[in-house]
This record gives sequence, C-alpha cells and structure tokens, in this order.
Amino acid sequence: MSTIDRLLEHNASYATGFAQGRLASAPAGRVAVVSCMDARLRIDAMLGLSEGDAHVIRNAGGIVTDDVIRSLTLSQRLLGTREVMLIQHTDCGLTDLEDAEVADTIERDTGVRPPFALGAFPDLEANLRLSIGRVTASPFLPHRDAVRGFVYEVGTGRLREVS
Amino acid sequence: MSTIDRLLEHNASYATGFAQGRLASAPAGRVAVVSCMDARLRIDAMLGLSEGDAHVIRNAGGIVTDDVIRSLTLSQRLLGTREVMLIQHTDCGLTDLEDAEVADTIERDTGVRPPFALGAFPDLEANLRLSIGRVTASPFLPHRDAVRGFVYEVGTGRLREVS
Repeated sequence: MSTIDRLLEHNASYATGFAQGRLASAPAGRVAVVSCMDARLRIDAMLGLSEGDAHVIRNAGGIVTDDVIRSLTLSQRLLGTREVMLIQHTDCGLTDLEDAEVADTIERDTGVRPPFALGAFPDLEANLRLSIGRVTASPFLPHRDAVRGFVYEVGTGRLREVS
Repeated sequence: MSTIDRLLEHNASYATGFAQGRLASAPAGRVAVVSCMDARLRIDAMLGLSEGDAHVIRNAGGIVTDDVIRSLTLSQRLLGTREVMLIQHTDCGLTDLEDAEVADTIERDTGVRPPFALGAFPDLEANLRLSIGRVTASPFLPHRDAVRGFVYEVGTGRLREVS
C-alpha cells in the first residue's frame, strides 16, 4: 500500500468526526508562520494552533524566498494577518550543503543545471536574521513591525528567539 | 499580548512534555505533501501525520512554483521521498482573484509593481491538474510516477482525488 493511500484511509476517519463548522478564511490570530518542511516539525502541535488560527507557509529551510513574499503579501493584504513568525531549526539539512555541489550532481544526473539556488546556508542564526531582514525590507508587506525569528530545537521541542 | 507571545506560551508546555526521541531527518513515509497556507487546513490532523512521517510544503494556493520544485528536489534527492501529494481546497482565496487587479492595487499603494505573479486561478480542478503536470514535467525530480492531486473540502474535512 502506498503512503498516500494510507493517509487517505486516515482522512476518511478524520472526515467522519469532522465538526469544524464554518470558519472564516482570515486567520483568527492574525499571524503567518513561515517554517521548514522538515518532517520532525509539527507546527500545529508545537504552537497549539487550532483550525482557523494562522497561515502556515513551509519550504525547504524555512527561508524567505520570493514565493514566501508572495504568500505573505496575500496573507497580509487580503486576509488581514499582522504578525510574522519565522521558525528555522537545529539539524537542518540545508546547513550541511553546498549549493554548487548539489547543482553539480543534478547537472551530472540530468544534463540540466537547476535555474534556482538550492538555499543552503552555513549558519542558522545568521540565516534567520537574513530572513527577518528580507521580510522587513519588502515593500509589498504593510505590516513589518512584528516580524520575529526563532530556532526550533529538534531535540527538546523548544523555540528560542533570535534577535 | 501578541499572538506570537501566546504561541510561545503554548510552546513552553509542549517542550515540557516533549518525548520525541531522536528521529531521522528523512521522512519515514517517503512522501512530500504540498498544500495551501490556509488556516483551516490542519495537515497533520487531516492526514494523521506523526513526527518524522512526511515533508510538508505550503504556500498561498498550494500551487507548484519554482520554490516548491526546489523543495521537492531536496526532498527527493537528499531525503529520499518518492511520493508527492498535492492538496488544494474549496473556498480558496486565490480562485476569486485577478492577478492584475491585485498587482494594480499594490502598485497604487506602494509605487512598486510586484515582480512575481500572485498565483490566482479561476478553476480549482484545472489548477490541480496543472500543478500535477508541473511536478511530473520537472527534470530535477527523480520520482514522478506517484504524483497525485486532491481537493480538500473545507466544509467536510474530506479529500477527493482529481484525476
């Protein structure tokens, strides 16, 4: 059985007990969370998010790419969020990589060099500060006074603010 | 009290009860889920995901942008995932938008026209098929034979496959 088929079985029971009612699409907590796709991060659980509370944006690294700025722009301008919480984490795969090495391997395998940077970064806290800076520098975001960055420690479950 | 401070209070109790042990960074279920940032979607709950099971990638719309291809490339090539599950949803804000209108408003407000498309789409199922096509067409992804697309119904909690 494929993993997706197993997840669909779970979804059938989830839907049977579903009693969410009609929620607004605008997040009640007026916050957008940006984090890494890492499988060890359960964002809802670590933050206590319920249905309707927050936008959750995730990619490899939890880095602030143009696509994250696009998502935050829609989040703030159309759906009323005002705070931005950036969460990156210890033991992230992107801290052990060299962009050029991965790109070389991909080019060898496929004949095509990826036209995008892979987003590797050597220093977690420096990268978080850079990510905060990318959000606060964006002219498209009307709310940039509550942008905060955190390291999630995968060994303890704890968030630690980086300032 | 800001929302982020409230979430941090919850995180302190989460960390107190934390007993995750040492998990591998490679997802046990070998699956990457791509979905929308929408606050009504609790991905872990709707799929029954536990810590370590799956990569979760989310942006506005759950559309397959270059940044999603970057994340999937790292997910498959470095962390061993093989299936891709795309989840978009009913009542998505992006189905009611016109890219040009939003871009006009932003340009009027800020003096700068966004250099990125906002990602609006009129037809949910057509957009899901387009997203599946973008994944299966990517030369950077070694595993493209298990890419499936689903509509999540926000009123029922149920996933419906689009083929």
